[in-house]
Amino acid sequence: MSAKIPVGVLGATGMVGQQFVRLLQEHPWFEITVLTGSERSAGKPYGEACTWVVPGEVPPALREAMVQPTTPEIDCRVVFSALPSTVASPVEEELAAAGFAVFSKAASRRMDADVPLLITEVNADHLALIHVQRRQRGWDRGFIVTDPNCSTIALAMALKPLYDRFGVEEVMVTTMQGLSGAGYPGVPGFDIVDNVVPYIRDEEEKMETEPLKILGRLEGEEIRLAEFAISAQCNRVNVLDGHLEAISVRLSQEASVEEIIEAWQTFQGLPQELGLPSAPAQPIIVRPERDRPQPRLDRDAGEGMAVTVGRLRPCPLLGWKFMSLVHNTVRGAAGASILDAELMKVQGDLD
Amino acid sequence: MSAKIPVGVLGATGMVGQQFVRLLQEHPWFEITVLTGSERSAGKPYGEACTWVVPGEVPPALREAMVQPTTPEIDCRVVFSALPSTVASPVEEELAAAGFAVFSKAASRRMDADVPLLITEVNADHLALIHVQRRQRGWDRGFIVTDPNCSTIALAMALKPLYDRFGVEEVMVTTMQGLSGAGYPGVPGFDIVDNVVPYIRDEEEKMETEPLKILGRLEGEEIRLAEFAISAQCNRVNVLDGHLEAISVRLSQEASVEEIIEAWQTFQGLPQELGLPSAPAQPIIVRPERDRPQPRLDRDAGEGMAVTVGRLRPCPLLGWKFMSLVHNTVRGAAGASILDAELMKVQGDLD
Amino acid sequence: MSAKIPVGVLGATGMVGQQFVRLLQEHPWFEITVLTGSERSAGKPYGEACTWVVPGEVPPALREAMVQPTTPEIDCRVVFSALPSTVASPVEEELAAAGFAVFSKAASRRMDADVPLLITEVNADHLALIHVQRRQRGWDRGFIVTDPNCSTIALAMALKPLYDRFGVEEVMVTTMQGLSGAGYPGVPGFDIVDNVVPYIRDEEEKMETEPLKILGRLEGEEIRLAEFAISAQCNRVNVLDGHLEAISVRLSQEASVEEIIEAWQTFQGLPQELGLPSAPAQPIIVRPERDRPQPRLDRDAGEGMAVTVGRLRPCPLLGWKFMSLVHNTVRGAAGASILDAELMKVQGDLD
Amino acid sequence: MSAKIPVGVLGATGMVGQQFVRLLQEHPWFEITVLTGSERSAGKPYGEACTWVVPGEVPPALREAMVQPTTPEIDCRVVFSALPSTVASPVEEELAAAGFAVFSKAASRRMDADVPLLITEVNADHLALIHVQRRQRGWDRGFIVTDPNCSTIALAMALKPLYDRFGVEEVMVTTMQGLSGAGYPGVPGFDIVDNVVPYIRDEEEKMETEPLKILGRLEGEEIRLAEFAISAQCNRVNVLDGHLEAISVRLSQEASVEEIIEAWQTFQGLPQELGLPSAPAQPIIVRPERDRPQPRLDRDAGEGMAVTVGRLRPCPLLGWKFMSLVHNTVRGAAGASILDAELMKVQGDLD
Repeated sequence: MSAKIPVGVLGATGMVGQQFVRLLQEHPWFEITVLTGSERSAGKPYGEACTWVVPGEVPPALREAMVQPTTPEIDCRVVFSALPSTVASPVEEELAAAGFAVFSKAASRRMDADVPLLITEVNADHLALIHVQRRQRGWDRGFIVTDPNCSTIALAMALKPLYDRFGVEEVMVTTMQGLSGAGYPGVPGFDIVDNVVPYIRDEEEKMETEPLKILGRLEGEEIRLAEFAISAQCNRVNVLDGHLEAISVRLSQEASVEEIIEAWQTFQGLPQELGLPSAPAQPIIVRPERDRPQPRLDRDAGEGMAVTVGRLRPCPLLGWKFMSLVHNTVRGAAGASILDAELMKVQGDLD
Repeated sequence: MSAKIPVGVLGATGMVGQQFVRLLQEHPWFEITVLTGSERSAGKPYGEACTWVVPGEVPPALREAMVQPTTPEIDCRVVFSALPSTVASPVEEELAAAGFAVFSKAASRRMDADVPLLITEVNADHLALIHVQRRQRGWDRGFIVTDPNCSTIALAMALKPLYDRFGVEEVMVTTMQGLSGAGYPGVPGFDIVDNVVPYIRDEEEKMETEPLKILGRLEGEEIRLAEFAISAQCNRVNVLDGHLEAISVRLSQEASVEEIIEAWQTFQGLPQELGLPSAPAQPIIVRPERDRPQPRLDRDAGEGMAVTVGRLRPCPLLGWKFMSLVHNTVRGAAGASILDAELMKVQGDLD
Repeated sequence: MSAKIPVGVLGATGMVGQQFVRLLQEHPWFEITVLTGSERSAGKPYGEACTWVVPGEVPPALREAMVQPTTPEIDCRVVFSALPSTVASPVEEELAAAGFAVFSKAASRRMDADVPLLITEVNADHLALIHVQRRQRGWDRGFIVTDPNCSTIALAMALKPLYDRFGVEEVMVTTMQGLSGAGYPGVPGFDIVDNVVPYIRDEEEKMETEPLKILGRLEGEEIRLAEFAISAQCNRVNVLDGHLEAISVRLSQEASVEEIIEAWQTFQGLPQELGLPSAPAQPIIVRPERDRPQPRLDRDAGEGMAVTVGRLRPCPLLGWKFMSLVHNTVRGAAGASILDAELMKVQGDLD
Repeated sequence: MSAKIPVGVLGATGMVGQQFVRLLQEHPWFEITVLTGSERSAGKPYGEACTWVVPGEVPPALREAMVQPTTPEIDCRVVFSALPSTVASPVEEELAAAGFAVFSKAASRRMDADVPLLITEVNADHLALIHVQRRQRGWDRGFIVTDPNCSTIALAMALKPLYDRFGVEEVMVTTMQGLSGAGYPGVPGFDIVDNVVPYIRDEEEKMETEPLKILGRLEGEEIRLAEFAISAQCNRVNVLDGHLEAISVRLSQEASVEEIIEAWQTFQGLPQELGLPSAPAQPIIVRPERDRPQPRLDRDAGEGMAVTVGRLRPCPLLGWKFMSLVHNTVRGAAGASILDAELMKVQGDLD
């Protein structure tokens, strides 16, 4: 038997669930022992229950693994939740109450005052909230840690070094988001061929609030939100994976092109310092070409875990503008949660 | 013989040239008698010289028409120029000097102080500049009237009623532009499938300056530029036709959703008042759905001559945000020039 | 009140149902008085119940029309059925038994010996089967007339003039079919971007059998199937509308390129002779270019009612090969049924 | 200094040239010392001269390498030629005459009687022709070995085990080919979005002849062509990489599904026996799903070096039909030549 930590993937048959399975299949520390799914999937072998749509194949070792219903009876202590936001909330709380370490992609608890909303490189110190969470909710060992919306990550990661070094006062962002962001089956082919859909439900609201918590400061037992305004316009484009964002930002202090680029290039977080298995060597990659980042060419940078920025130039309104790109189902979803868990493992929070 | 005005299409084999041919083929007032092309095309029948890529077929009557070089020897007095910007300037001036009425899509003269940069519904009064132009340049009957960049039109048309009614102080725009904007062959298929290219040469510069002239006020013999800041980010997306724009705007005065929508819906220009043949009944169409306009669904509104807006909602930064869409090779190019010419014909400027 | 024949569209909210609505909205003879839908849609205004995905808009006159359940209580005598094949059979029979003229796109009854499988130009004489049908099934005035599978139509229409003039012995066909053939929402965008799916359920079986009935000879009270072998391979490609087919055929007699092209170009059916409202002037259009027909360029030929062929050349195996194209939801679906009904109206079968 | 064999890539800036560079960058036996290009590229650093469009980046070690003109003065003995067919012939012969080992993707010499047309797993014995070639052409150490057309490889590889075991009498193939097959820039995006182009210049002719040489038998000093008829129809579809083929085949002997699948699955060639560095473990992969192979999902099988087949089922005309897929710029181009060279290195032909 391996000495790896047994983990479960909740909602394992969907697009993000599959990315968890793919990214965990040869993980040095974690081993999938539980796959859960909806009533329709439960009781079926995983290889049959899911239409595999991410790269590669269903890992042979999990092909026959029986999909289980999502209950506290599952046999593991750490769970990665790719449950749909509509059902996630009560289930995840039940698990946390039962002692599970819950890493959640669901939107429902992200803005709760006692729940960390984590980008591992950006606000690892917010993990202190799990103690508040346990005390307030009467949980013993369990906790919930959430990840931001996928498009938030391309924005908040790119802003972090600027926020720390120069301050941020105003942010405008327009996104061009890939199809996988809508899950599977997601957007009908007939809707998106030769088209753009300028609307993604609830997406703009998330992008306008989540970065303020992520860049917020932990003061005692609470997060003091960052204080700047964000305006977001979100669009679905005919791209498989990758969320590309046109961002304008007003900084609090003067900055030169060189200083901004240097802030990005030298940015490192705890995952890099600790050499966590899923950490990209460089969390923010700066492309020098005038026409990058591009979704197809740059989404897999750093095994899909890096955010790529480019086209930094003056903005007549806010001072600076640039593009940012994230692989929405890797860094923007499954990979982010795994990185969180790796950090907490090292910090002893999964014991 | 028809009593129609004989017109020429310069650069008739390209994508915009073909749109001129298509839109003029059954025009009630104009009749194509001249088609010009590059050295490679001159001397060939039009049907052979051009790879027809716009809807329908090469008009049978023009299939055998010989493509001519672009010189003042051509037999017509009105010309629509789809010449590439790189070569347009000297040729168009030579023609104007020789007495031709030149309607140009080329970028080279747009910002010249004595050249009208026209959106027919928006600033028809700027046509007064042709008298300045003639006097200053020593031209007798000829003149040059230019049309804005295709993506400028979706922006400036949507801003016009807001500018007049409420004032405009700041504008932020991010575009998602169709392939035909790059002409033909344009963007390689291999570059754009499953991708977005976040760069279009010189496009942002045009969008940040042209609207200021278009919305500028004619004072005596010159245009006093409108005074507000524009910031543009331009992207190429996997769409055949249609430029979609995410716009934020700060108005000078308070306005309600209803007032803004009413300003758009009631907006009419000279083309509508005069019932010009190519004028859309409504130059600005407001879609009520939360996910419109979409390029494929809305680009052909008003036979491709209307601009479609939608998704008006508050912007946390600038006050208001919305989407705007234009068919880039119809309203954004050939159709715009034809509408200009129709107006000038009615005003007696083509006699 | 209009003197038009009141008609119903069954399954009116789906992709083919919408094409019926679109094509019938200004029909000179028929007027939609009934729209039916599934339980989920019934009781809602049509404009609300359906996500309109075909060109144009929901006809204003029908926007508020209440969607009804599909029962013999509906108020019309002629119905166009776009019901899913899985539910069509009992419902359509119930209606026919109740006296309705049923024009059906469903696959379930197509190969029944007493049911005409019609391409109006090809085998209008098969309509005689409705008398057999009535007698055998004990129906009074009602009947069922079916249309072929959409991809069958591009094949059988192109074969008809060759079959009549030269005889057909063997046919090989490989299809590249558009997304709308799968209905709406149909194929997920994530499955088809940068991809081809080489499988369409039951499609090959239909293509290998239906043409034999369509080209079969009415002998007394039954259709004697045509006797040649067909092999079909069906693929889904990243195209909105249009089924393109690569066809090889062995003819019974010698034929020259000119003879084959002439057979296609001179082909006319009853719809053309009678000048039916939806009949294309030329049911088969022959493109002379070496790279046509192409789905986007040719699918709308004859208002979407013509089949376009091209690239006729020798086949080393079977003698001849060529391409054929049909607009799958117009000529291949709704338009075909409407043309059938027009013919039957003229023949007095709808009185 | 490394002890690797120095090699040159001719035409290194195009799509196939880039694949050579990518696939050779960490090759255990070969090391790129020469990159050649057209007049426009020669004299520039490779990183500047080429628009890199294949996965990854220009290898850092070659970024500054100067592109050279293609002459016998280049410093290496083995060359991989991705020269356009239009210019390849005289240049490649000049090099072979000068003693170079030339591995060519160009079409011009493929059917020459004394030139091997190689699929390394299929007809390695044809390499004996290089001795004939040298003698007849008066070449000393040099030679030319050619690779088949990319779409030929998916066909001939899949046929080989069937040909050996059951005999092949007739073959019908319809292709759906990716954009990279046309090189870069290749097919304009405007032509292929929402479309299929049913024509690829000269492609059908190649597919109808090359397999007969590849499957031909070496008799003394010449190849006796295989004797069966092939009919090909070639189409360009909206896919980045991967040529998918719908194939029907008449075998000489009875065969069962199991026997055919077994023939494919057990097929091995010299590359597998010798464990050549670029050899896929299994040259033909059989997918069991009813809807595979698919270009996006299967083109990278075996690092892009395997051919994937699937959907084997009876064909009413020829007996059997199935799908076959190849990555056209890897197995179908650069990878094929590299595998040839690896074999010849082991056989001592490159000394």
